[in-house]
Amino acid sequence: MTAPALQAPNDSAPIGVFDSGVGGLTVLKALCAQLPGESFVYLGDTARLPYGTKSAATVTRYSLKAAEALTEYGVKCLVIACNTVSAFALPAIRERLGAVPVVGVIEPGAEAACSASRSGHIAVIATEGTVRRGAYQAAILRLRSNARVSAQAAALFVALAEEGVCSGPIAESIARHYLAPLFRDDLPGGPPDTLVLGCTHFPMLAGAISAVLAPQVSMVDSASTTAAHVHAVLTAAGLLRPAGAGAVRFLATDDAGRFARVGSRFLQRPISSGEVELVDL
Amino acid sequence: MTAPALQAPNDSAPIGVFDSGVGGLTVLKALCAQLPGESFVYLGDTARLPYGTKSAATVTRYSLKAAEALTEYGVKCLVIACNTVSAFALPAIRERLGAVPVVGVIEPGAEAACSASRSGHIAVIATEGTVRRGAYQAAILRLRSNARVSAQAAALFVALAEEGVCSGPIAESIARHYLAPLFRDDLPGGPPDTLVLGCTHFPMLAGAISAVLAPQVSMVDSASTTAAHVHAVLTAAGLLRPAGAGAVRFLATDDAGRFARVGSRFLQRPISSGEVELVDL
Repeated sequence: MTAPALQAPNDSAPIGVFDSGVGGLTVLKALCAQLPGESFVYLGDTARLPYGTKSAATVTRYSLKAAEALTEYGVKCLVIACNTVSAFALPAIRERLGAVPVVGVIEPGAEAACSASRSGHIAVIATEGTVRRGAYQAAILRLRSNARVSAQAAALFVALAEEGVCSGPIAESIARHYLAPLFRDDLPGGPPDTLVLGCTHFPMLAGAISAVLAPQVSMVDSASTTAAHVHAVLTAAGLLRPAGAGAVRFLATDDAGRFARVGSRFLQRPISSGEVELVDL
Repeated sequence: MTAPALQAPNDSAPIGVFDSGVGGLTVLKALCAQLPGESFVYLGDTARLPYGTKSAATVTRYSLKAAEALTEYGVKCLVIACNTVSAFALPAIRERLGAVPVVGVIEPGAEAACSASRSGHIAVIATEGTVRRGAYQAAILRLRSNARVSAQAAALFVALAEEGVCSGPIAESIARHYLAPLFRDDLPGGPPDTLVLGCTHFPMLAGAISAVLAPQVSMVDSASTTAAHVHAVLTAAGLLRPAGAGAVRFLATDDAGRFARVGSRFLQRPISSGEVELVDL
């Protein structure tokens, strides 16, 4: 397959943001806040979500198609706002996109965790795919070679966030189900002091998660650190847009109405279904 | 698109069973029990599951590809073991498959409900897509025009069944979350006396569901009624295989290991990943 024709990027070009569905809107929210002059094209592959339970080969195949589709919009930078895609497909996407910088969410999340942790014992909750790949574990150890990382797949959190069951006894009992084994007091060296929310759905459940965590545990996610990375990358390339109100385009591969309805909760601002363009990959 | 070339069916041909993933294995289990001489080819579209939150157009497009793939195995009958596909795509699949009989799970489930209900007030829990389509509601009213049907989407049940969290306080609290509004005592005419498990994942949660239902409520699913329909269709066509031990082939579009691991729970017998063939649709 040949690489798509790439235009020379300019600072007025939009930033592409790719996610398997609506979870990445938590990252888009941080990007909009930290890069208020930029325009964004957000693509959610809602026809084929979730990626978190799929194999590396399938996630990579789907992600390359989505990344190529976003290059058609002349993006100056591509943010992979999905932990599973960042875990499995980042090298393949970078190779395919050539000169366009590609920023994933795993390295920024690992950075945030290493900054927050005093003891170096860090817990990670993520999708089945991200945990199986060991992506956070490896990224944290690259930054802090003596860290200890305990990881747990937490698939039900994705369904809870999509359903909007983000607080209350159900969300808290599921949080306890996943977190109690990770934060046992009798672990050698004591329980972790930091929890990484290693899936873009999980910040939606931050209230329920913190309700069952000891108060001294720091909870971090990738969103704001990823936005800071993008800021640094664009600044270094002379592509940061200095000012002005940026626009956001929403693309989805299925069901604009559902994207708007569920996505509004994730972005914490209303999205109308008329704003969501259906695309075929 | 042209119809695939169809061989004249014979009784030694296998029965095709299609589902979006592993949920349909609860139907396959009933089919194997009631049709012990038959061979089966089961296809789970694990690369694109779940279908329950996707649009009619997308579900239909995926299902037609899967149905065509199963015709390559010379199937004498196709069972659509997924409620969402049965709700959205049955006419399109029947048109595409021509002479091969196609049996869905909605009509059999509606039949089971109408037989079980004395009051005619029937509750249905299903995926978002199946509920939105009104498929059970319509099928029940065709059989019993004075029935009252209350339907509720119960997406978290799918995630619970896949995760294997099928009993205990978490499963029961989620069952209560969905069922309490459906079975309120102050409903005009009283609460329903029958609950249809309108998604093939839900029989896995039968214990948790019955723990929160009043004991007089009947719980029905489509599996055994669907198997009885298939028996009747094959008998009428002279295609029922009289005796002998049938074989089962498992096909999946992604991750044979996960299909085997999760599917073993649904089929209630071990499946090894070596038994699962990966196919590309």
